[in-house]
Amino acid sequence: MSLTAFDSQITGSLFTDEKTAALFTDRAVIKAMIDVEGALAAAEGACDVIPREAAKGIVRACQSAEINPSLLAEGTARDGVPVPALVKELRALVGQEHARFVHWGATSQDIYDTGLVLRLRSALDLHEGFLRELADTLAMLAKTHKDTPLAARTRTQQATPTSFGLKCAVWLTAVLRHIERIPGIKDRLLLLSFGGAAGNLAALGDKALEVEAGLAEHLGLKVSPAPWHTMRDGLNDYANWLSLVTGSLGKIGQDVMLMAQNEVAELRPGSGGGSSTMPNKVNPVGAEVLVALARQNAGLIATMHQAALQEHERSGSNWSIEWLTLPQMVLATGAALSEANKLTSELVVKADQMRANIEASNGLLLAEAAMFALANQMPRPEAQEKVKTACKTVNESGKHLFDVLSETFDLPIDWEALKDPARHMGASEQMVDRVLESYQAVIRRT
Amino acid sequence: MSLTAFDSQITGSLFTDEKTAALFTDRAVIKAMIDVEGALAAAEGACDVIPREAAKGIVRACQSAEINPSLLAEGTARDGVPVPALVKELRALVGQEHARFVHWGATSQDIYDTGLVLRLRSALDLHEGFLRELADTLAMLAKTHKDTPLAARTRTQQATPTSFGLKCAVWLTAVLRHIERIPGIKDRLLLLSFGGAAGNLAALGDKALEVEAGLAEHLGLKVSPAPWHTMRDGLNDYANWLSLVTGSLGKIGQDVMLMAQNEVAELRPGSGGGSSTMPNKVNPVGAEVLVALARQNAGLIATMHQAALQEHERSGSNWSIEWLTLPQMVLATGAALSEANKLTSELVVKADQMRANIEASNGLLLAEAAMFALANQMPRPEAQEKVKTACKTVNESGKHLFDVLSETFDLPIDWEALKDPARHMGASEQMVDRVLESYQAVIRRT
Amino acid sequence: MSLTAFDSQITGSLFTDEKTAALFTDRAVIKAMIDVEGALAAAEGACDVIPREAAKGIVRACQSAEINPSLLAEGTARDGVPVPALVKELRALVGQEHARFVHWGATSQDIYDTGLVLRLRSALDLHEGFLRELADTLAMLAKTHKDTPLAARTRTQQATPTSFGLKCAVWLTAVLRHIERIPGIKDRLLLLSFGGAAGNLAALGDKALEVEAGLAEHLGLKVSPAPWHTMRDGLNDYANWLSLVTGSLGKIGQDVMLMAQNEVAELRPGSGGGSSTMPNKVNPVGAEVLVALARQNAGLIATMHQAALQEHERSGSNWSIEWLTLPQMVLATGAALSEANKLTSELVVKADQMRANIEASNGLLLAEAAMFALANQMPRPEAQEKVKTACKTVNESGKHLFDVLSETFDLPIDWEALKDPARHMGASEQMVDRVLESYQAVIRRT
Amino acid sequence: MSLTAFDSQITGSLFTDEKTAALFTDRAVIKAMIDVEGALAAAEGACDVIPREAAKGIVRACQSAEINPSLLAEGTARDGVPVPALVKELRALVGQEHARFVHWGATSQDIYDTGLVLRLRSALDLHEGFLRELADTLAMLAKTHKDTPLAARTRTQQATPTSFGLKCAVWLTAVLRHIERIPGIKDRLLLLSFGGAAGNLAALGDKALEVEAGLAEHLGLKVSPAPWHTMRDGLNDYANWLSLVTGSLGKIGQDVMLMAQNEVAELRPGSGGGSSTMPNKVNPVGAEVLVALARQNAGLIATMHQAALQEHERSGSNWSIEWLTLPQMVLATGAALSEANKLTSELVVKADQMRANIEASNGLLLAEAAMFALANQMPRPEAQEKVKTACKTVNESGKHLFDVLSETFDLPIDWEALKDPARHMGASEQMVDRVLESYQAVIRRT
Repeated sequence: MSLTAFDSQITGSLFTDEKTAALFTDRAVIKAMIDVEGALAAAEGACDVIPREAAKGIVRACQSAEINPSLLAEGTARDGVPVPALVKELRALVGQEHARFVHWGATSQDIYDTGLVLRLRSALDLHEGFLRELADTLAMLAKTHKDTPLAARTRTQQATPTSFGLKCAVWLTAVLRHIERIPGIKDRLLLLSFGGAAGNLAALGDKALEVEAGLAEHLGLKVSPAPWHTMRDGLNDYANWLSLVTGSLGKIGQDVMLMAQNEVAELRPGSGGGSSTMPNKVNPVGAEVLVALARQNAGLIATMHQAALQEHERSGSNWSIEWLTLPQMVLATGAALSEANKLTSELVVKADQMRANIEASNGLLLAEAAMFALANQMPRPEAQEKVKTACKTVNESGKHLFDVLSETFDLPIDWEALKDPARHMGASEQMVDRVLESYQAVIRRT
Repeated sequence: MSLTAFDSQITGSLFTDEKTAALFTDRAVIKAMIDVEGALAAAEGACDVIPREAAKGIVRACQSAEINPSLLAEGTARDGVPVPALVKELRALVGQEHARFVHWGATSQDIYDTGLVLRLRSALDLHEGFLRELADTLAMLAKTHKDTPLAARTRTQQATPTSFGLKCAVWLTAVLRHIERIPGIKDRLLLLSFGGAAGNLAALGDKALEVEAGLAEHLGLKVSPAPWHTMRDGLNDYANWLSLVTGSLGKIGQDVMLMAQNEVAELRPGSGGGSSTMPNKVNPVGAEVLVALARQNAGLIATMHQAALQEHERSGSNWSIEWLTLPQMVLATGAALSEANKLTSELVVKADQMRANIEASNGLLLAEAAMFALANQMPRPEAQEKVKTACKTVNESGKHLFDVLSETFDLPIDWEALKDPARHMGASEQMVDRVLESYQAVIRRT
Repeated sequence: MSLTAFDSQITGSLFTDEKTAALFTDRAVIKAMIDVEGALAAAEGACDVIPREAAKGIVRACQSAEINPSLLAEGTARDGVPVPALVKELRALVGQEHARFVHWGATSQDIYDTGLVLRLRSALDLHEGFLRELADTLAMLAKTHKDTPLAARTRTQQATPTSFGLKCAVWLTAVLRHIERIPGIKDRLLLLSFGGAAGNLAALGDKALEVEAGLAEHLGLKVSPAPWHTMRDGLNDYANWLSLVTGSLGKIGQDVMLMAQNEVAELRPGSGGGSSTMPNKVNPVGAEVLVALARQNAGLIATMHQAALQEHERSGSNWSIEWLTLPQMVLATGAALSEANKLTSELVVKADQMRANIEASNGLLLAEAAMFALANQMPRPEAQEKVKTACKTVNESGKHLFDVLSETFDLPIDWEALKDPARHMGASEQMVDRVLESYQAVIRRT
Repeated sequence: MSLTAFDSQITGSLFTDEKTAALFTDRAVIKAMIDVEGALAAAEGACDVIPREAAKGIVRACQSAEINPSLLAEGTARDGVPVPALVKELRALVGQEHARFVHWGATSQDIYDTGLVLRLRSALDLHEGFLRELADTLAMLAKTHKDTPLAARTRTQQATPTSFGLKCAVWLTAVLRHIERIPGIKDRLLLLSFGGAAGNLAALGDKALEVEAGLAEHLGLKVSPAPWHTMRDGLNDYANWLSLVTGSLGKIGQDVMLMAQNEVAELRPGSGGGSSTMPNKVNPVGAEVLVALARQNAGLIATMHQAALQEHERSGSNWSIEWLTLPQMVLATGAALSEANKLTSELVVKADQMRANIEASNGLLLAEAAMFALANQMPRPEAQEKVKTACKTVNESGKHLFDVLSETFDLPIDWEALKDPARHMGASEQMVDRVLESYQAVIRRT
């Protein structure tokens, strides 16, 4: 169907990237579950829990099985979970002889959640790649624009000069932290889900833990000391990571939008949307999408946390909430990362305009610098007062602040030289260097 | 695609109903927009803003136009909105002669949002029908079980007797209020969106308001005194209504789940999911779905409200957030209503078990009644203390509370007669009657 | 204590207004509950459910009762609700003779929720007053600036000219709708909550509905056909209204922030925060607060909806969630309204800068107007192309668009006259007039 | 004030614990900021950025400074941040001679956020202690009840037997993971915030990084390679951890509530709330509070993520959102942990009732076990069918499932022996042991 903005043929291209989407199609969902059923049979065969012949037959069938999603619709509506219908189809493919050994001792949630974890592992790898690409671009921008003066803006007002390179470096710090978080996330997410009906693998007798170990090894997953059927902190920590990522990208998108306003004009998104009636406009579509996906994920993370209150040994309602929520979060993150890579790599940086915006302030942007210059010659509160007075004169006269100060005070300060914003960027360059070092370390380490 | 739980062929049947879904397919989205473009041309032709011939040609083309959603994908990704691509396709269908008069003077948002409103009108009508069906069922349950004793439970503990009929009547009160809210919602939602590029219809010259009036009449929508491009309270009030509805249904679903627990066993969902390994289980799938959809909508409403902060005269990012969010909410509401109708109409009510659960308390459930009986004979705090003491004796001895009291006090109270829970249901019957009157009034009125 | 931003002596002044706060102090909470207990006694005395003497004594005690909040702390921690402790204190004040008739037949939730409703009625009246004040200010701004040209901005880019008056009128439309929503909200919120232990008033025998009617009349509240102990749609619809209001105010705040950016400089908040180190800065604190409170409410509304799933006849957990959430929403709304009134009434409108920003575009902002002018002389797609080309020339040459077009085409168009943005504001003036009519109607009607 | 449920003298005892609250009083907020100002002066004195005498004077003043929160109210309302007012008060305390060197080169956000981080460090240590205490209790419960049979419940229905010990062990797994997450959280949260007006420490000249290093050392915090003024992922990751914790505790609370229902009666909270009218009731107040706080935090985490989109170099609005949101989350987590420790340590476990609930099913709960027993003798689908048929007979006849099966089939199965639920708890014991090993490892390691 094409009911949601993610699935729509119309808007899907805005809100999904193909590679992430490939992990969430019905076929991918089914494929992952079949992989788990196959691995289960293999592990059970190896432990002689089911006949080795049956195991071979099931593994073989699973390798080639293609089950049409529509075959699972009716069963899912009835059972509230697709696995019983899947098992039925799988048994038909396996053939009567071994059919009864399919899904031996497992419960639906084991299969579904382990299949999910396999797909999330792929998503994490994919998205780590996207993040590394983004880190590369931001590192390059930070390096290139280490000396490009830019008006820092605090509380939406021009503050004092900084460099565009530092702005990019600040963006980069979060991207690096997101990469650094991945091992910790994986450690508590990439766990086999395997507990059987009640979470104690009762149906597997004294071979339970042996099968569990074999299955985990087959799938390359860790074993949890006890089932996580209803303790979803690993999943929610991952969901939070997704929203942390899109939040940082949304912040970048918003900065780009603000800097691309006509009156600011410091950045231009390389490509952007046309308007149906205004030929002059270039809309920052990519940046807008980053903001939209960030806010969407920020909302969905709450729903995931609400679903943490899973009652008893399995919660039908809360598990369903995850199905409704988590895939969207992963899709949104994939799309945002892909869009962010496009946006940042195509970004047109207008350094002249950045400098022009600083100069347009007639030195008001350098008021802090002026104040610190004066504060070397008089008490700081006094300096602060003097600069405040001078700023008023600037506003009234249209003169440059430093000319006003130069005219007012006879002090040994080279006001003309101080006019260059590049002299007031403080430790910007060193900070950029530190971030680039950190970038090198993260890229090498992980 | 089949990326989200709503669109998936596997789970879609759990989380969507067909009729609501039909309003949110790509084809329905496109159809509604084409209807708006057609009506626009008609209105502009009638006002001589565009040539009457052109208007006719466009109207005719719009009536038969079928535009493949995939044709809009590329344009939407570029422009951030599907309308420019749609207009291009529509112009091709209209033919070169009149093509330039398609979309005359309108902006993308006019077309998209008005198309949305048309679909939401259908959704409201559809869902009102579902609500009326639910009201009918709950009214019948309330009537039928007016005298069926049931343990009221407060703070998850048995409290005092009530009737199952009153429980259903209480559910019904909210359903009735949801129906009553619809006219107010419609009044501020079913507004034409028409403002042109900047919201002042500048491109239509002095015919602007005339075209607007004609367009509104064609579509059966009200005119807003000024465009609502960025004031989204009508939309958010509707979204809230959706979540109010699913919240009430979720409450019903949760009550059903609690009453269907094996140890309580007062209700049985008529149909329910099997378990892959436990043949004895019947899972309350429908009730779980009601809870899941309620919590999903409760989360999404926040995102809609976040999107209220639409900057200036049109916000690409916040508008996109609505696309990501609102359709899901409408879909969830349709599914929940459809599921609620199924669940309540198939509900197996086990009146015997309801009475048995009361009796199993050895009269502890009637402690309040005992207390009030005693309070007629002694100060209430004293009565309360006596009953507390007697309750302890019940717990230790396994005797019925009224037998304990009868043995302890020599008072003119017919303890045996008081044992019947039906004598302690207070104004349940009258309350049910009041709700049924209210039901009659709402059903007739609206 | 001073643990949250609302209660803190430091930040409380940013996030609360005094009048709303006065409805949510511990003393106000207690006072409202005592009022309900008093009215209950009065109603029960009038129906001879309790002795008339007792009723008088209780009413008298309630009128003068002052109960220290700290006396309820221990009981609330134990019982999960303050009412039992309150009743104990009240009984002590009433004196031994009539003490047992205090709280006769009621349950804690009856007292707490009815007390809440009384306070919310005051809050609604207070906030309606704030909204009317805001409507007045916006109406005046709309009227004053009906002819003040302003660059409309769509998707963060300059679009075409509009008027600042229309911008204010658009803001006003939502404010008017919020006022219009109030009667509907009240209708389903200002309901007596009265059901006793199980919701059927069992403890009041055959006088139940008579007492209920009397109590409702005493308090000026409507009777619900059945208790709303667990159907919270009235409360949540009100909570949604709060968030609709703050959402609209947040949108205004955000527009003000954007227009107050140094590079835009079209508005200046009359008063604003200083910076500790930048004497030149004036931070738009009031506008920021509007955005912050809007987003806070937008988040909290979700939690209210989550709490709709109240199990059975009373839910301790979900009721607690409301206590944690709703007061903040009312406080935030009061603060936002108060702040919005301050912000809009002090707003410095810089009409010259608005015009200058349009002119700085060298006519690019008038591209739509140019396109429509050309489209009268040639097919619209062609006109669109020509204007696109001319726009590029503008960007390269720095010439005015209309000069470029005038030089390129020999057409009977008075390009010079078209340069005035005031000629391209479309139906702005008529729209403002319509909104002002609507304002008059709402102000008179309600 | 006493406006929110956290601050109220009435309900505060339900929703806060004293130790956490002590970190969020106005005085604690002020104290932390003064500590930062003192450390800043010390670091700047050591680097000769300010005179050593001045540094000493400031440090001394900071050590003894007590600033009344009400003194900061007016300034905070004006500036949108308390720091300028704080600095003014501090300067007065320092005395005129050194006053100008207070706050030298810092910006308000440096002081506020670093102060916050210092308090969050204390909160993390405090809460880790609470978690360890909870781990101890759960480990003991898991150990004690390793062999206590309990009906596992999946999708709210009885499934198959498990042990109460495993249930506790499963709860414990999440608690252990929360402890394990702490070092990673600290690593990216306990960062000095120090950037000055624009984030590049311009006012400190070439001593900037030296001061930064000294300040970080004084405070025991790490240095961030670039300021995190607007990259809030560290804060949001911590906020997520808070909600992960309360989510797990909410799950425990919900399980306790369900198991304490009268009809289930497997657990009794040791202490609980009375009802004002039902002397027989004991409300599970503590468990309800866990659910309420979990859902509150689950909602608030979304608002924190929304605030991630901090524009440019400092965002007044988004920073304010954090003030409104984060303290509540920390308070809720402290209260939930404290409540969870009370609840679990006082929990009355009714092992007899757990067994009785299993037996009441007439063996239906052992259907899976029966099926696996039969599946050793016939194909599994056939076994499944047979058991389904037998289950129906149980429902109709009231006989025990194993008696029905024994009568129906002549198979070498000792049905009588199989009736003991303790024989069907699978790997429960081994899983409990694994969790206890993990507990030992975590407790030792961290």
